[in-house]
Amino acid sequence: MNDIYAVGVDVGGTNIKVGLVDQDGQVLSKAKLPTLLTRNVDAVLDDVATLVVRAITKANINVDAVAGVGIGSPGPLSPSEGVIRDAANLPGFQNIALRDRVASRTRLPAILTNDADAAAFGEYWVGVGKNIDSMVLFTLGTGIGAGVVIGGQLLHGHFENAAELGHTIVEPNGIPCTCGQRGCLERYASAGNVATRAAERIKAGEDSCLATMEGGVEAITAERVAQAVGTGDKVAKEIWDDACRYLAIGCVNVQHAFNPALVVLGGGMSAAGDLLLGPVRDHFDKLTWKLVDDRPRIVITALHNDAGLIGAAGLMINAAKSNASRIRVSMPPA
Amino acid sequence: MNDIYAVGVDVGGTNIKVGLVDQDGQVLSKAKLPTLLTRNVDAVLDDVATLVVRAITKANINVDAVAGVGIGSPGPLSPSEGVIRDAANLPGFQNIALRDRVASRTRLPAILTNDADAAAFGEYWVGVGKNIDSMVLFTLGTGIGAGVVIGGQLLHGHFENAAELGHTIVEPNGIPCTCGQRGCLERYASAGNVATRAAERIKAGEDSCLATMEGGVEAITAERVAQAVGTGDKVAKEIWDDACRYLAIGCVNVQHAFNPALVVLGGGMSAAGDLLLGPVRDHFDKLTWKLVDDRPRIVITALHNDAGLIGAAGLMINAAKSNASRIRVSMPPA
Repeated sequence: MNDIYAVGVDVGGTNIKVGLVDQDGQVLSKAKLPTLLTRNVDAVLDDVATLVVRAITKANINVDAVAGVGIGSPGPLSPSEGVIRDAANLPGFQNIALRDRVASRTRLPAILTNDADAAAFGEYWVGVGKNIDSMVLFTLGTGIGAGVVIGGQLLHGHFENAAELGHTIVEPNGIPCTCGQRGCLERYASAGNVATRAAERIKAGEDSCLATMEGGVEAITAERVAQAVGTGDKVAKEIWDDACRYLAIGCVNVQHAFNPALVVLGGGMSAAGDLLLGPVRDHFDKLTWKLVDDRPRIVITALHNDAGLIGAAGLMINAAKSNASRIRVSMPPA
Repeated sequence: MNDIYAVGVDVGGTNIKVGLVDQDGQVLSKAKLPTLLTRNVDAVLDDVATLVVRAITKANINVDAVAGVGIGSPGPLSPSEGVIRDAANLPGFQNIALRDRVASRTRLPAILTNDADAAAFGEYWVGVGKNIDSMVLFTLGTGIGAGVVIGGQLLHGHFENAAELGHTIVEPNGIPCTCGQRGCLERYASAGNVATRAAERIKAGEDSCLATMEGGVEAITAERVAQAVGTGDKVAKEIWDDACRYLAIGCVNVQHAFNPALVVLGGGMSAAGDLLLGPVRDHFDKLTWKLVDDRPRIVITALHNDAGLIGAAGLMINAAKSNASRIRVSMPPA
């Protein structure tokens, strides 16, 4: 069989990242541009098309060997229709037929999938979940996304909206979430909300080294909170530990719902490595049941920031190989 | 093709219920005996074998047309090994090879599955979930069991322990559960715990018509609490509404985890019908997100107390038809 390649696209709120990926999951070339959401949807789509061409050219691969473009994007979206319904983190992207518009611009087949699903599939395909056909990935970013792999397949759900684990309720009558619920996991444990919670406490007058960091309260990030944990800052330590405890509750609930072999922590916050993994595992051990030992292994992403584009490319390659039983491939007009 | 039948067995803490079921899910005969757990495991197994023969005889079906015995039992258990690991509600049933011992006693092939999984499969096969290939069932009994059907298949999980949704944490640092965790869904919303919570409040001196019911505090059941709700009893109303609210949280979390088309409420507490369904739906509508409309329909079981035995028989019939790809059929020694 000839070598087969796909372009993986990771559409984020900050950057559009693109990579040419081979059938073994190796990234042969990369390209990226800021998302610049203040411009219109067409301009963003033009940038995606430009980046796709750039990645193929840079890798020096014949376009005939490229199976297509796999796009991972924030949702809610419909993989079967290839449409972004309403991406909270992509203003202006409402009911956008992203898949077909990318296919038409690049003249390549395309598929669309949720960004966290893409990352989960990437880890399953060639990352820390390789050959582990039952796993759950959390992406800890602005919010919390998740992807669930069962029997080597992504779980989509009846409404194509499964694995929105960031919006499972972990605190009845808890903090209001942008989604309209209260007490969502992501309000306590996403990178974005770790920063928000730190800013709130400092604004309320609490003493913390975060208050005097460059840029002030508005510039607080989860990364800075993690650094402050290292210096022993009390506010930072409490918020970080609280986030880890809620993540551990999320892991317990995943254990009892999906009973996976593996839980992967990815997204921006996972860059903290052991500072994240240690407390999450400790809280998990204390919180989980003692009835039987069916604990998943909890680990940090192996593919880091590339998980999404690798996974999206992998789904495209799989779809091309299997003629896309589940994920419909969009063909550009002839 | 010839007609095919199976015997469904529902092993409960109180009764062993058995039925001869045809390939359309119709129950042709029934038999039951009290479980009498004070006796030894062998005596219980003898009763199962007796009931299997009784059901076949009563239906007047030739034993050659019976594909085997499908057993639904409290877990944790292993369907693939056919072994009950440690059933909290069946004292003495630890590491019992129930499947093979039933097969050997009845001289029929047998399969073993979790009781809530069996009930979920029953509803999917011929009940309220017929032709709905993405659904979740809660059994509201002593505890809360659950079964998840995805693409027409029961979700088992890597450790064969998926869908233990009664032990998802809905109240961090909440009431201790027998499983070793705190704040499990079943501690707030199972029939058993609705009764327990009512008894606790009455013992603590609160005024309620439940205090003067025959048998006193020890005789309080969820059924009695439901009756007291009907008379306007304040304690009963608060406990019942609280249980419904936690069940609604469970439904929101199921929505975001599995994204099913349907959530079915079964088990003893579901006998309350609209008194259960109304408040659960109301709380769910208030609690769930407003981002997209991917709400599952929430309904009461159609098969009621027979869901488990019908589902267990259906799994046996399916296994016989397909030569058991997932669930290994145990054949008795020749």
